[in-house]
Amino acid sequence: MKYEIPKNEYFERIARFQARIRAAGLDACLVHGTESDFANVRYLTEYWPTFEQAGVFVPAEGDAVLLIGPESYKYAVGRNVLPKIAMMLNYRESAEPDYPGIALSTYPDVVKMAMGKRPLKTLGLVGTAVMTKPTLDAVAAQLKGVKVVAADEVFRPLRWVKSENELNCHRKAFKVAEKAVQAMLNELKPGMTEFQAIGIAQREIYANGGEYEGHSLYCFGGERTSNGISRPTGAKLRKNEIIQLNIGARVGGYSSSIGLPVWFGKLPKEQMKLVEFGLRAHKFTFELMKAGVEASSIAQKYYDWGCAEGWKDYMLYGPVHGLGIMETESPWIETTSKYKLQENMTYQIDTFFTGDGYGLRWERGCIITKGGCELMSKKFMSIDCCKLD
Amino acid sequence: MKYEIPKNEYFERIARFQARIRAAGLDACLVHGTESDFANVRYLTEYWPTFEQAGVFVPAEGDAVLLIGPESYKYAVGRNVLPKIAMMLNYRESAEPDYPGIALSTYPDVVKMAMGKRPLKTLGLVGTAVMTKPTLDAVAAQLKGVKVVAADEVFRPLRWVKSENELNCHRKAFKVAEKAVQAMLNELKPGMTEFQAIGIAQREIYANGGEYEGHSLYCFGGERTSNGISRPTGAKLRKNEIIQLNIGARVGGYSSSIGLPVWFGKLPKEQMKLVEFGLRAHKFTFELMKAGVEASSIAQKYYDWGCAEGWKDYMLYGPVHGLGIMETESPWIETTSKYKLQENMTYQIDTFFTGDGYGLRWERGCIITKGGCELMSKKFMSIDCCKLD
Repeated sequence: MKYEIPKNEYFERIARFQARIRAAGLDACLVHGTESDFANVRYLTEYWPTFEQAGVFVPAEGDAVLLIGPESYKYAVGRNVLPKIAMMLNYRESAEPDYPGIALSTYPDVVKMAMGKRPLKTLGLVGTAVMTKPTLDAVAAQLKGVKVVAADEVFRPLRWVKSENELNCHRKAFKVAEKAVQAMLNELKPGMTEFQAIGIAQREIYANGGEYEGHSLYCFGGERTSNGISRPTGAKLRKNEIIQLNIGARVGGYSSSIGLPVWFGKLPKEQMKLVEFGLRAHKFTFELMKAGVEASSIAQKYYDWGCAEGWKDYMLYGPVHGLGIMETESPWIETTSKYKLQENMTYQIDTFFTGDGYGLRWERGCIITKGGCELMSKKFMSIDCCKLD
Repeated sequence: MKYEIPKNEYFERIARFQARIRAAGLDACLVHGTESDFANVRYLTEYWPTFEQAGVFVPAEGDAVLLIGPESYKYAVGRNVLPKIAMMLNYRESAEPDYPGIALSTYPDVVKMAMGKRPLKTLGLVGTAVMTKPTLDAVAAQLKGVKVVAADEVFRPLRWVKSENELNCHRKAFKVAEKAVQAMLNELKPGMTEFQAIGIAQREIYANGGEYEGHSLYCFGGERTSNGISRPTGAKLRKNEIIQLNIGARVGGYSSSIGLPVWFGKLPKEQMKLVEFGLRAHKFTFELMKAGVEASSIAQKYYDWGCAEGWKDYMLYGPVHGLGIMETESPWIETTSKYKLQENMTYQIDTFFTGDGYGLRWERGCIITKGGCELMSKKFMSIDCCKLD
């Protein structure tokens, strides 16, 4: 099996997006992506910028155009699916070279490439959370008289329900992540640095078919396990405290992450109790996930259950967020989430609790089905897995 | 030796920045960083966002404040050097969760934390190349009446001349990169995928004291060696063609990269000639680098020499770029570069040539000295290194 998105699927995505652009009464959308937050651009073109930023100009009718910086032309020709490509200064790298002698396009050039003589009156911006000042300034300066509106919601729901090709990339990404986690469980030793531990996972991700990490990998111990978001350090792994792992691979663009707390020796009793409760909460959440259910009700049930079990003060957020090209993407499942889960949406069940000076996360991905959900990894779901001695 | 920046050095940086803010007639600067382009924020605070974005508010007089998203408070407390931290919605992750129940700050709150009762009339923006719409919108909405100006040049030159601590991080990053390159030279085999080859380098980077890759690592063969910027793929390494390596480690925040073309078997004659010329051009550039020299003159001499040697059509851009926290940062050395090199500036000598369907890059870092430059790696500078059989 090839773990990639076939070329025609990109064009189907663009066609679906164009239908939504027309339905929203827009003439075109300008989509943005960066090196670390590239999902929107990759979803439409397969292109993934490095050093530079990138965009896609998608007209309501006509041809989508990939927009790149001045150094990526040959890379873009080889990698992206769109025949039309424009090099623009506003997508250059943040070192802001001058590139003397290199011919560059402007947005009016792009409009002509995409739309011919059709007029651009209203332009929607997509990926506004990561759209940067040079692009916003270039739009304002080069497209005077065009009405510019935020249009993230015209695009975002396209990425929610996954195709069979997308699901297969995700499933494979979890298989690769499982190998990386297993290697860590086999090889971690007290005294090893967190960075060295990450190296074991990186080695396995690439050796087993991953194209990159699925997110910046987690391995950190002690106090820092209370961090909802964190990064590994040069600190050494120690005995008798929680060490948090979150390991994700990326396959064909699609992410994964498997999270679990591990330890050498013996945990303090109250930490052990939170680990055990966390695993119960993790499994409790599985039962809530199915097509047709209102998202907010899942967050509410999870919260109410956690409170009833006596762990209210240990709950920070959660309990579930979208999974796709980015390991964390829209839509989240929060108490404010007003939508219904659909078949083939993909989520990370992200069960995070934090105590006084410690915390832990159980995490894995799932695919929503009619009657429930398919867990994309069933490994590492027992207390036995967590004991490293 | 500890390869990190001591806490007091961050405060010295902030003090130097504040002097420049005052000299520019600004009341404060707002600095921006993202997960992949975090240098400005890390330079001032040691903080490196993940999933979220981040900022630093630096008043002309008063206390700098670290600005983070809603999920990173404990991480930021543990990692960054500033005692004042504000959580703000505009730095949240691109999935844009609502975070019901979490209290967040606004820019007027931050101004008060930083400046007390001193008035904010003129605000400079720094890191505008990566500053995103939510932050620009929040500034406009929350700081009405404040004059906002681009101020990248108030900050950028601070990062040009490196301290002894910074230089030691760079030097170590090159030592780690050398180990990663050597492992690839030992272990690469025809039939291995480019991704698998990258895994060898990742393993060595983390095993030998790296905290992360210095940039997205390069290993790609054939046609794609003509790409100035590119990414590895699942393609297999083949005999008798150029395979381009660019491998960089990150230590204490600081990057490195070592680039060389390698091959199994035998290269076509014209490719071999370009490889040999490339190495001569690489070494020619070393001789041009020293304190006091006008940057544009280096680019011009390099270009003139390349033309005189008969390789004009193979030259794409110019021959040196800045090195620091980012592997490619300001200042570049182009024919338009109007400044003089100073002692302890750091550069990547980036010798890239592209032919018809192939290309190659010789690359390494250097530190500018009074009479010349210190190469941070002297390995892998012969044709013998490139032959993998």
